[in-house]
Amino acid sequence: MDGGIGDRHIGDISTPGRLAESGEGISLEELALATRNHGLPLEALRYDLTPAGLHYVLVHYDIPAADAATWELTVRGRVRTPLTLGMRTLTSYPAATQRVTMECAGNGRARLTPRPVSQPWLVEAVGTAEWTGVPLRTLLADAGVAADAVEAVFTGADHGVERGVEQDYQRSLPLPVATGGDPEVLVAYAMNGRPLPPQHGHPLRLVVPGWYGMAQVKWLRDISLTDSPFTGFQQAVAYRCRQSADDPGEPVTRIAPRALMIPPGFPDFMSRARVVRPGRVRLEGRAWSGHAPVTRVRMSTDGGRSWSEAELAAPDGHGWAWRRWQASWTATPGSHVLSVRAEDAEGHTQPLDQPWNRGGFANNLVQRISVLCLRDG
Amino acid sequence: MDGGIGDRHIGDISTPGRLAESGEGISLEELALATRNHGLPLEALRYDLTPAGLHYVLVHYDIPAADAATWELTVRGRVRTPLTLGMRTLTSYPAATQRVTMECAGNGRARLTPRPVSQPWLVEAVGTAEWTGVPLRTLLADAGVAADAVEAVFTGADHGVERGVEQDYQRSLPLPVATGGDPEVLVAYAMNGRPLPPQHGHPLRLVVPGWYGMAQVKWLRDISLTDSPFTGFQQAVAYRCRQSADDPGEPVTRIAPRALMIPPGFPDFMSRARVVRPGRVRLEGRAWSGHAPVTRVRMSTDGGRSWSEAELAAPDGHGWAWRRWQASWTATPGSHVLSVRAEDAEGHTQPLDQPWNRGGFANNLVQRISVLCLRDG
Repeated sequence: MDGGIGDRHIGDISTPGRLAESGEGISLEELALATRNHGLPLEALRYDLTPAGLHYVLVHYDIPAADAATWELTVRGRVRTPLTLGMRTLTSYPAATQRVTMECAGNGRARLTPRPVSQPWLVEAVGTAEWTGVPLRTLLADAGVAADAVEAVFTGADHGVERGVEQDYQRSLPLPVATGGDPEVLVAYAMNGRPLPPQHGHPLRLVVPGWYGMAQVKWLRDISLTDSPFTGFQQAVAYRCRQSADDPGEPVTRIAPRALMIPPGFPDFMSRARVVRPGRVRLEGRAWSGHAPVTRVRMSTDGGRSWSEAELAAPDGHGWAWRRWQASWTATPGSHVLSVRAEDAEGHTQPLDQPWNRGGFANNLVQRISVLCLRDG
Repeated sequence: MDGGIGDRHIGDISTPGRLAESGEGISLEELALATRNHGLPLEALRYDLTPAGLHYVLVHYDIPAADAATWELTVRGRVRTPLTLGMRTLTSYPAATQRVTMECAGNGRARLTPRPVSQPWLVEAVGTAEWTGVPLRTLLADAGVAADAVEAVFTGADHGVERGVEQDYQRSLPLPVATGGDPEVLVAYAMNGRPLPPQHGHPLRLVVPGWYGMAQVKWLRDISLTDSPFTGFQQAVAYRCRQSADDPGEPVTRIAPRALMIPPGFPDFMSRARVVRPGRVRLEGRAWSGHAPVTRVRMSTDGGRSWSEAELAAPDGHGWAWRRWQASWTATPGSHVLSVRAEDAEGHTQPLDQPWNRGGFANNLVQRISVLCLRDG
């Protein structure tokens, strides 16, 4: 795989991860990822359920050409009865629907110093949808889990090279997570009541409520139970929080709490800075955590020097989805920096200084929105 | 509007257009636009109709919170009978459906030297959809066009600041274009048979087949006929091809021809370079022009030194939409650069050297795809 071609190797086009130099602008390679993938335009925080084209999307390789009519999911490895399931069979199982907020593990990466060079998210790699599918534990019960199974490995149909390694996209879950009831992992075939769009895994994907996006394997074609932990690239090399290149690091799992605000007023096209008129401005947004329900949202209009409580909407029974919050602000002429900060029932909160690691993962630094309040009239 | 607030002016957050310095990386401001807006992932050229979430999107300001139930379109100015039309009335008119390829006027901007600092498109700001709505000429006939009307001015509900000017998004069309039959301009309320998604103008937008995206006013709320040419910002300042800041420039109108290729093989995550195995590789993609039907597509596998004919699909009756093309290539181990070049019935073609202007508009330089062919096995 890694042999030379004349003077050309796969390593020439697929280089190790690196950190941007001080003052180094975004590269054309990072821009190519930003142009393919996209975040949630923050005004779309207004929708309880994010329309498909506004939900964040990250695709590691290409969106596969997938045909639901011939798609097959295999369930194999440490099971009693291997299964091969077409879409007609899968949709005949009792279905479950869950409202889930998903966030990319790399959200916020492009604002880190130094900046890990990868998909350059600012702060908007999030979205909420209702996913419908078969509970994974139902399929595993049908296949019969062997006593020595410890993990389930999920393989997608997307194929590419990453940091020199040719691969299908693969991730695993510990068996207790894969068969758990809260969150209940879904093998999903519908998003907001319609077949999955191509970029969200058509025709089949995994949905792991509360976990970052890397766990939500798209274009799912195989589930294999193993008797030892999976050591594939996306598990053992990528998606680990490392402080240095030789640090084994901690795996990225559940979503750290975050609140985001719909930027008030109206924007400047180029700077995206916001403009408001003096007087009462309603501030609103969403807050979520993959650890436990969000219990508190605080808001600052002076760049984080002082904080006040925002009003959090009552729980709506969707424990794995964001909660709406709102607050009121009396804008006065001049420049302001607005921030918002979530806290969950386990006491996790958002740091005021950047939490840094070499991959730029699980960074939930508070949002900062620059607002210019004009004089009246 | 432009008065100081203490020491702060709207000019502090909304600066004049500029060109990037030599070697200047993409800025966080450009990245913020790239993260909100998005292109067509090039593998999605495989779909005749681009799914909504894969079609390119450019939003100048914010996506407005629009309610179809209360939306009203006004038709006024130099007409005999001003109209106020709700969605129920609009959908009761005889409907027309057109398949249209849309492209952003700034497509390709980020690869220009020097680079105009704005939405940093690489090459993928395109998409094709079937739009359904009321022909604009039907509405104008109902209102009765005054003898002295020369232009129709279209106003969207999106509001913001651009280069220091606070504005609703507004563009005009000459009356002969607005009332023409080929292309027939639509006031559209459906995309691919469903209500417009928020980012594509819900509930109402203009569709001007063959023109760049700036003409396709979204969140359309007013049509005013005028007895003199419109001189608003998006008409007289932006969207003009200027060679220097004081050049009045030519207006951006119809789409210049372009062919794009689905990148063959599979990608490296970070570099997006492509990998193939030796042997026959099917190449395919789409080609379009807003001037006249595409009549020829040529393909190069040696970086543009030699060209061969690609096979163009037969006309399918959708004159304002892209045409499929295909070709075969026998890949040999080593590095290759693939290019493709469209020509239309009026003889317009794609340049091999960048067509440059200060806005980075209507740049249809040929695509270049770097491919590494591995040794077998």
